[in-house]
Amino acid sequence: MIQTAVRSLVQARQRPLTLSLRYASSKPHSKVLTTETMHPLVRQMEYAVRGALPIRAEALQKELLTDKTKGFDKVVFCNIGNPQQLNQKPITFFRQVASLAENPELLTPSNREALLKLYPADAIARAEVLLKHIGSVGAYSHSKGIHHIRENVAKFIERRDGFPAEPENIFLTQGASSGVQTVIQILTQNSKSGFMIPIPQYPLYSATLSLVGATPVPYYLEESHNWGLNVDELKEAVHKARADGTDVRALVIINPGNPTGQCLSEENMREIIDFCHNERLVLLADEVYQTNIYKPKAAPSTASKRFSNPWAKKLFSFHSISKGMIGECGRRGGYLECVNIDPKVMDQLYKIASVSLCPNVQGQIMVDLMTNPPKQGDESFEKYQGEIDSIYQSLIRRSNKLAQCFNSMENMTCNEAEGAMYLFPQLKIPQKAVDAAKEKSMAPDTFYCMAMLEATGVCVIPGSGFGQEPGTWHFRSTFLPEEHLFDKFCADLKGFHKKFMDTYKD
Amino acid sequence: MIQTAVRSLVQARQRPLTLSLRYASSKPHSKVLTTETMHPLVRQMEYAVRGALPIRAEALQKELLTDKTKGFDKVVFCNIGNPQQLNQKPITFFRQVASLAENPELLTPSNREALLKLYPADAIARAEVLLKHIGSVGAYSHSKGIHHIRENVAKFIERRDGFPAEPENIFLTQGASSGVQTVIQILTQNSKSGFMIPIPQYPLYSATLSLVGATPVPYYLEESHNWGLNVDELKEAVHKARADGTDVRALVIINPGNPTGQCLSEENMREIIDFCHNERLVLLADEVYQTNIYKPKAAPSTASKRFSNPWAKKLFSFHSISKGMIGECGRRGGYLECVNIDPKVMDQLYKIASVSLCPNVQGQIMVDLMTNPPKQGDESFEKYQGEIDSIYQSLIRRSNKLAQCFNSMENMTCNEAEGAMYLFPQLKIPQKAVDAAKEKSMAPDTFYCMAMLEATGVCVIPGSGFGQEPGTWHFRSTFLPEEHLFDKFCADLKGFHKKFMDTYKD
Repeated sequence: MIQTAVRSLVQARQRPLTLSLRYASSKPHSKVLTTETMHPLVRQMEYAVRGALPIRAEALQKELLTDKTKGFDKVVFCNIGNPQQLNQKPITFFRQVASLAENPELLTPSNREALLKLYPADAIARAEVLLKHIGSVGAYSHSKGIHHIRENVAKFIERRDGFPAEPENIFLTQGASSGVQTVIQILTQNSKSGFMIPIPQYPLYSATLSLVGATPVPYYLEESHNWGLNVDELKEAVHKARADGTDVRALVIINPGNPTGQCLSEENMREIIDFCHNERLVLLADEVYQTNIYKPKAAPSTASKRFSNPWAKKLFSFHSISKGMIGECGRRGGYLECVNIDPKVMDQLYKIASVSLCPNVQGQIMVDLMTNPPKQGDESFEKYQGEIDSIYQSLIRRSNKLAQCFNSMENMTCNEAEGAMYLFPQLKIPQKAVDAAKEKSMAPDTFYCMAMLEATGVCVIPGSGFGQEPGTWHFRSTFLPEEHLFDKFCADLKGFHKKFMDTYKD
Repeated sequence: MIQTAVRSLVQARQRPLTLSLRYASSKPHSKVLTTETMHPLVRQMEYAVRGALPIRAEALQKELLTDKTKGFDKVVFCNIGNPQQLNQKPITFFRQVASLAENPELLTPSNREALLKLYPADAIARAEVLLKHIGSVGAYSHSKGIHHIRENVAKFIERRDGFPAEPENIFLTQGASSGVQTVIQILTQNSKSGFMIPIPQYPLYSATLSLVGATPVPYYLEESHNWGLNVDELKEAVHKARADGTDVRALVIINPGNPTGQCLSEENMREIIDFCHNERLVLLADEVYQTNIYKPKAAPSTASKRFSNPWAKKLFSFHSISKGMIGECGRRGGYLECVNIDPKVMDQLYKIASVSLCPNVQGQIMVDLMTNPPKQGDESFEKYQGEIDSIYQSLIRRSNKLAQCFNSMENMTCNEAEGAMYLFPQLKIPQKAVDAAKEKSMAPDTFYCMAMLEATGVCVIPGSGFGQEPGTWHFRSTFLPEEHLFDKFCADLKGFHKKFMDTYKD
């Protein structure tokens, strides 16, 4: 699909003049803008996380307002890692600071008495420090983000990894996605520029490559080894792509994995870095789930490793406020760290950032709080730590419960999640169901997910949106439904699955 | 410059295999990512609003922390319409609602007594309504924006224009810029796709066209007619471009103008709409300054006209929370209305919006407040109206003062601002200064602006960043410095200008 997109672009750019005159005034009744005449790469791009399933889920949600005969009363959105949509509570201290930054009038001395009834002193103090550096959350900031916050991010990276980071090498972004999109854009010299991406992958990558007209170079994760990454697979993929004429220039690693949930061992990470160095590849490390690690491997240090200095030679690393135990998705905040990137290239990144003026300031404030939370001894520390721990422990329990649920079903196997927020079970679909799907012009996994949605209100995403070994079928589900609803959630899935398999058994 | 960019892209896509292997492992010591090997369109894009002048201004600001010998103690950023950076106060009611939405714990009954000491009841009620529809500001919303807010935007458009608007045709965006970028992208079928843009223009347009590899089709505004738009000029431009093989498909109108500040008369707007209809052009109406109108023309209705239903045949209209009297730039909020756009094309816009997940929710909340402010009779109405009026009247006074200041100077003439936030004076630069600029490899207007920055700390943007008639020189300055500093601001500019002209007089 993506190769087709690239070919179309090349053809489009070589098309003769006739096409370009199609909408001249000599043909006044032709439509000006249709899907046929729009940007071909946009038209061809696929983006599954918000594709056919979530569109049907939205419509279903509207139907449920009036139709009470479906046997369920709401849609459960497991198609996207959006914890607060499913009622995960925000971190109290973070929201206190954010609300004070919104309304600096509260900070005037005459309000102090009333304010102290509603806010702890350390939240007030933090808001005051931030506003001193920011001015107003309503002013455009520096296009790379507020310098004070970039300094705090650099200190955070240094504490985490034991190696200095530079505020000038950090760009605050509107979520990790916008950083990823910009870096892929800048790395694309022409349609032969190749990016190694895992299969299964988070569809942001395939969609962005499709949009910029670059070439995806897939490498497969090993489902039978708990979705592990084998460096020999990387080598084979890069050599084959180069022999085919692709200018492979970057490797995308998602760690912990999305949709697959695996965590790389330190040894594996070192091999990957050597591979990038030997093959002259820039490493794009999507590390947005870096605190969502549930099963630290034998060596305890593994769990806390990220691709960063002094290890990585040439690296873009992405982080986000949307994941972890914070889950502030709607705020759109994150950062991008550049390690050993040519300063002139960073100037170009700055120029692109400038066209969109700046990342939203409330998103930047949340990056400050994520990287610089209350410390032991601070008034808000205990509450903060308690909230984080409680969400973390609950995620572990829910991930285990859902994996057990999937593994208890006929024709389904599921690796446990070592990290992230998703499970990606494999499904054996009976031939009758494959035939029924074909009749509806659906892929078999889409057919299964659509049936699940209609029967239970649970929205998950078919594996074809992420990529999977040909002939295998999967889907991705978050394990984010609320804990007190989780047993019912699992029972609903089991009930549906049994019915589905009974209906279509061979 | 932009045509060059397009040519380079075409060449890049046709380059033979040799180039694509340049970074294969056979040449292990070549650099992986440099400005030579990056995306050629990104490299060639120019973006003046945050170009050489603001970069020098940032450095200067750092120098001023230690160097007290410059004769001024801070940089005055007149390069960008960023009112709150220059201490414009935010609208109280808006910030109250935003801060309550951040911290829903405040809304619990046990806090009500303390809360009512700090917040008016209508702000509390509004926050409650919003949270009922939003859930949490930390959750991803619908990719087109929260439905309730889109309904409010549709009602706002209907009240404003007397013609119904559809929530489904409205996309909330992260500022107007991201809407403009997406629409230009989708309208670009290939490198021959042409977009008519005014000269002078806001450089978002030229930068975005350059990034997507489309062809700009310039039309000139008439400086001698107060930057008016002559439809004959449009006709000439489109016919010439089509004869040259460009597939002209859209017309960009910025009204009120940026950088030029003119407002279109209703008659002029009707001519433009007929022109678009006859020539099969989609109209892109950048109407972010729609409330910044200072000199309503003879017919009072003119001042309140926007390109909208039922006038416009096929239209994308952009609005923003960053301008008007609100000036909430750092929050990144806005909306895009699609009028008579093919539903399948809107599905594609939705797909693109999905890849970035959603516009930030606090930006969406501010769009709700902008389009649905306190009404007569509401507790906060008087304060709200007073704040809006006070900023509006002050903008009028400052715009007149700055125009008078420019017109009082030797070798400078300046049209008054009918709207927006900028003046764009024309400058006659003496030959000696032109020669001195050449020696420094600068355009003469850049040379003048750089000298102004070094002498006064005032940062403006040279006309070459916006486009200007060949052989003429201009610069753009906001009139946003605080009113109590405004006389000194004008005096500083005058003092610098006189010295500059004395130094370089022929």
